[in-house]
Amino acid sequence: MRYKQVIVVRKDLKISCGKMAAQVAHASLEAAELVKNRDHKLYRGWKQEGAKKVVLSVESEGELFEVYRRAQELGIPSVLIRDAGLTEVPPGTPTAVGIGPDKEERIDRVTGRLKLYK
Amino acid sequence: MRYKQVIVVRKDLKISCGKMAAQVAHASLEAAELVKNRDHKLYRGWKQEGAKKVVLSVESEGELFEVYRRAQELGIPSVLIRDAGLTEVPPGTPTAVGIGPDKEERIDRVTGRLKLYK
Repeated sequence: MRYKQVIVVRKDLKISCGKMAAQVAHASLEAAELVKNRDHKLYRGWKQEGAKKVVLSVESEGELFEVYRRAQELGIPSVLIRDAGLTEVPPGTPTAVGIGPDKEERIDRVTGRLKLYK
Repeated sequence: MRYKQVIVVRKDLKISCGKMAAQVAHASLEAAELVKNRDHKLYRGWKQEGAKKVVLSVESEGELFEVYRRAQELGIPSVLIRDAGLTEVPPGTPTAVGIGPDKEERIDRVTGRLKLYK
């Protein structure tokens, strides 16, 4: 079995690499805790494989919502992050979605066509 | 009480923003789990305050080790991340340190003089 977690971020937000990394960490931790509580065996398997995390990007808020909606539709544990503490964008701006960990092929049904966040 | 988690990354590594964000997420999750297991009350307090995360930078591997050593010396739960899965640097390269969550002033004794990761 191969597991991964995917974090999707908005490329259209003009925030620094470091601020976006903090958003990614929020999404990763929140989604990981969901999975840990729902399916501890899967969580442990993911960790034992090295807790693979991949960061992908979308171009807009609308695309971010669409990714989140699709993950929810497939029943993959996922979280939408809106950060209150950012000084670079209005409070409550949606910044990232954390998806899984889950089986790679399940997550690819949601994010398979998205590009790596460079 | 104010809590935070700090993640320190190496600015001298020429890896993309997205790859570094994944390293930050590794460091954040590993350090958070340490704290959750050692001091659940503190962990819960940090989450209730919004799970503040700050990403700072150093200029070299030596400085990263020094930050990690200092956190350990003060007894602050911390992790050193070496990523095996990076294609952009040699396997095992130390990339990031995750520190806490812990009280802000305790963490500032380790990272107070470091710059924000831009």
